[in-house]
Amino acid sequence: MHFIEALILFSLVITIGHGNVLDNRIDEFWTGECTLPSGLRKEIQSYRPLAEEIIEKITSKDFRGETWRSLSDFVDKFGARLAGSQNLEDAIDYMVDQMTRAGLNAHTEEATVENWKRGYESATMLNPRKADLPILGLGSSVGTMRGGIIAEVVAVETVDELNALPDEVVKGKIVVFVPKWKGYGETVKYRSLGATWAAKKGAVATLIRSITPFSLATLHTGHQGYQDGVRKIPTASITVEDASEILRMYKRNETIRIHMEMNDENRGVAKSRNTIGELTGKNANSSVVVVSGHLDSWDVGVGAMDDGGGAFIAWNAAKFLKAMGLKARRTIRAILWTGEEQGYLGARAYMTNHSLSEEKEFNFFIESDIGTFTPTGMDFSGTKEAECLFKEILQLLAPLNATQFASPIDGGPDISVWTDRGFPGASLLNKNEKYFWYHHSAADRMEVEDPDDLDKCTAVFAVVSYVIADLSVDIPKEIKSFY
Amino acid sequence: MHFIEALILFSLVITIGHGNVLDNRIDEFWTGECTLPSGLRKEIQSYRPLAEEIIEKITSKDFRGETWRSLSDFVDKFGARLAGSQNLEDAIDYMVDQMTRAGLNAHTEEATVENWKRGYESATMLNPRKADLPILGLGSSVGTMRGGIIAEVVAVETVDELNALPDEVVKGKIVVFVPKWKGYGETVKYRSLGATWAAKKGAVATLIRSITPFSLATLHTGHQGYQDGVRKIPTASITVEDASEILRMYKRNETIRIHMEMNDENRGVAKSRNTIGELTGKNANSSVVVVSGHLDSWDVGVGAMDDGGGAFIAWNAAKFLKAMGLKARRTIRAILWTGEEQGYLGARAYMTNHSLSEEKEFNFFIESDIGTFTPTGMDFSGTKEAECLFKEILQLLAPLNATQFASPIDGGPDISVWTDRGFPGASLLNKNEKYFWYHHSAADRMEVEDPDDLDKCTAVFAVVSYVIADLSVDIPKEIKSFY
Repeated sequence: MHFIEALILFSLVITIGHGNVLDNRIDEFWTGECTLPSGLRKEIQSYRPLAEEIIEKITSKDFRGETWRSLSDFVDKFGARLAGSQNLEDAIDYMVDQMTRAGLNAHTEEATVENWKRGYESATMLNPRKADLPILGLGSSVGTMRGGIIAEVVAVETVDELNALPDEVVKGKIVVFVPKWKGYGETVKYRSLGATWAAKKGAVATLIRSITPFSLATLHTGHQGYQDGVRKIPTASITVEDASEILRMYKRNETIRIHMEMNDENRGVAKSRNTIGELTGKNANSSVVVVSGHLDSWDVGVGAMDDGGGAFIAWNAAKFLKAMGLKARRTIRAILWTGEEQGYLGARAYMTNHSLSEEKEFNFFIESDIGTFTPTGMDFSGTKEAECLFKEILQLLAPLNATQFASPIDGGPDISVWTDRGFPGASLLNKNEKYFWYHHSAADRMEVEDPDDLDKCTAVFAVVSYVIADLSVDIPKEIKSFY
Repeated sequence: MHFIEALILFSLVITIGHGNVLDNRIDEFWTGECTLPSGLRKEIQSYRPLAEEIIEKITSKDFRGETWRSLSDFVDKFGARLAGSQNLEDAIDYMVDQMTRAGLNAHTEEATVENWKRGYESATMLNPRKADLPILGLGSSVGTMRGGIIAEVVAVETVDELNALPDEVVKGKIVVFVPKWKGYGETVKYRSLGATWAAKKGAVATLIRSITPFSLATLHTGHQGYQDGVRKIPTASITVEDASEILRMYKRNETIRIHMEMNDENRGVAKSRNTIGELTGKNANSSVVVVSGHLDSWDVGVGAMDDGGGAFIAWNAAKFLKAMGLKARRTIRAILWTGEEQGYLGARAYMTNHSLSEEKEFNFFIESDIGTFTPTGMDFSGTKEAECLFKEILQLLAPLNATQFASPIDGGPDISVWTDRGFPGASLLNKNEKYFWYHHSAADRMEVEDPDDLDKCTAVFAVVSYVIADLSVDIPKEIKSFY
């Protein structure tokens, strides 16, 4: 998952449409409180036996364990899948083949991604005692000069502390940021912007406490962005443990010197692809339901969680519906995004390429990118009318104890390029309290994923995507666009 | 902590004495049930106000936070302290100085330890896909030939599976052991004996799933032992995650090839020292109360938990009693053992050197080496009479909610060289459910240690060691000796 830029990009918006409701009767009844037309409520409730059958087949009969098995086959075969790498492109070819074998209409669509490559990375604390300092460069970081940098350390807990220091104290130093964990959204700013903040004060490099609430000496990478006009300095994560030790030493007024070398390299851009597999609907001209996760990962761990789990519950939902012989009114389109970790580059390219047709083309967007632990429900973005309808659909997940509703979406980074503009969508809610223990680290492995939980998550996506795709009405929407 | 050998070593024992009770009246009353002579019970209960004062000073007044601060000063200064290293010897000198400054009578006593040194260690999976395979050599492992070994893998979950394979299947292979976690005592056999088991079947090296119930791609080292007459082959730990992946691949009948190189080296033996600081008692000829932990650690992490925490609650207990101006009837002897991780080499040397005087010299042994999380009480080994007395003493820890009793001792490796032969002793019980998450890994850092918990643990040791040292009676014992 990658947050950061969406809010900035889509903050200036304007309403240009007023929904797309096929059944005009709905407007009469939806007046603020959640009262569905009784016909529509009954229609949704009529899916209950089918929802129960889908859930049973996926969680305890024909397809039990299949999501975990297919995911482990995949990650064991390809390992990490950094956008820009040949390995990701090979993984995409494999997925097209898997989708085709499953009877889905599979193809890919191009997207341009960054081509950053990690090189040799090493750091050693020279003073006050000599110690290896494991580091993990942040995505898009420049390297050091050959032979590396030796510099003294300035350690701070907050950017305000840094900015309060005279420039001459920071100049020529390595700034070590030791932010306390205050939730991902707040803390990740240090990873995203730390190098820029430090460079503005004259620092030569930055090391940032890994963005995680819990560590077993675990390094966490992630994307960062340089600001135009500010010197690009090398930036890497260090462990929570090393960051704390350095801060203690700094507060004791000890002189800390670090030698760090990074041969990371920005090689411009590369071609990648979004991977699409469709379960065609009965009405070829209908709008589609997108069910999605991203296939790219960081280059540490194997991306079993971020976002192998999300990608595999999405496309396995379509695969199992197909295997059950189900065909909805509308097409269900499984999309495995590329370049998510670099700022939703796959989703943005897809949005651009489909922008002329998007209002008619898309009915609903579904995504999973904040874990596939035990599912509890879905969070949602859309109009009040759509919300009422979606809440009723969630009741079909009662056999999974997954009827929790929240709004707006908190963790649907790729689909935010649509949902932030008024397209309706939903993202998986799950018991992901430990998500950031593993996130962007070598610990993102198959151990994070539980077979039964994955089955349940796949069942959530299968039921919700099928019912929305099969309803007699489109999901209402109010699309906004840029000024 | 290091288990393994004590049970074997001390399994053949014989009773040679019948206790050392100063107050003969005790025998009349102690007849199986826990009935203390009322005078002795009252004597112990009379320490309640003093116990409360000690606890208050350590946990909320004069000494609050001091155990954590002094431990962090120490580990930040020295980092890891492998037995045989100069760094450990420097740390010992520092501790002698600290003890002297605290007003304790400090000295060291020699012990011979192993001199094993980790060198360059690296492994790569070549097939079925290329991937880095982080490894951490096990203590006493030999290295590979220069340039390393390339071999196919045989992966097993149990030693029985290995032994059921024909020798020709194992010959020339790297055996990857993937034992399920079944508690430390059971699972650690794979680390201790895996290389020997595999070598007997003709393997050229072994890799062992890190001995831990939970992993964030964490490597766990530890000691292992070669068996006489069996070829010594290189042996290292791999992560839980890599072990599982290799097992999955192996079960799919994929050919797995690994290139591993280790330049670890056994350099014979080295001199080290146990570090002793005494708070002299009023009666110079009395028996002593030993309160202890070990100062050596593995060479990854900094040994803040194993056993920095134990060592520092032990010697800080004596330090704070001294600072409070307290002087018991008997001497309280803080001992920081060396070479524990290599099989209690410091404690064994100390036992040998004090063997002629041990029956008169030692009254009671206290140790902490299974974590210094929230204390809950102490576990105990000794006679029924001693047990009754000790249970009464534990009641003095009510203000700390640390009155839990268990028997025999489960985690007192160093003092087991005495307690296994009938000397009475006790070890700290604490909420150490996560102990093995950190054990022998790079995650053994100050983050494991909580300042308030450390205060409480120190208070437990201060109260118990003082009261035992000050009682009118020695703790009863029945010493056994070797055949």
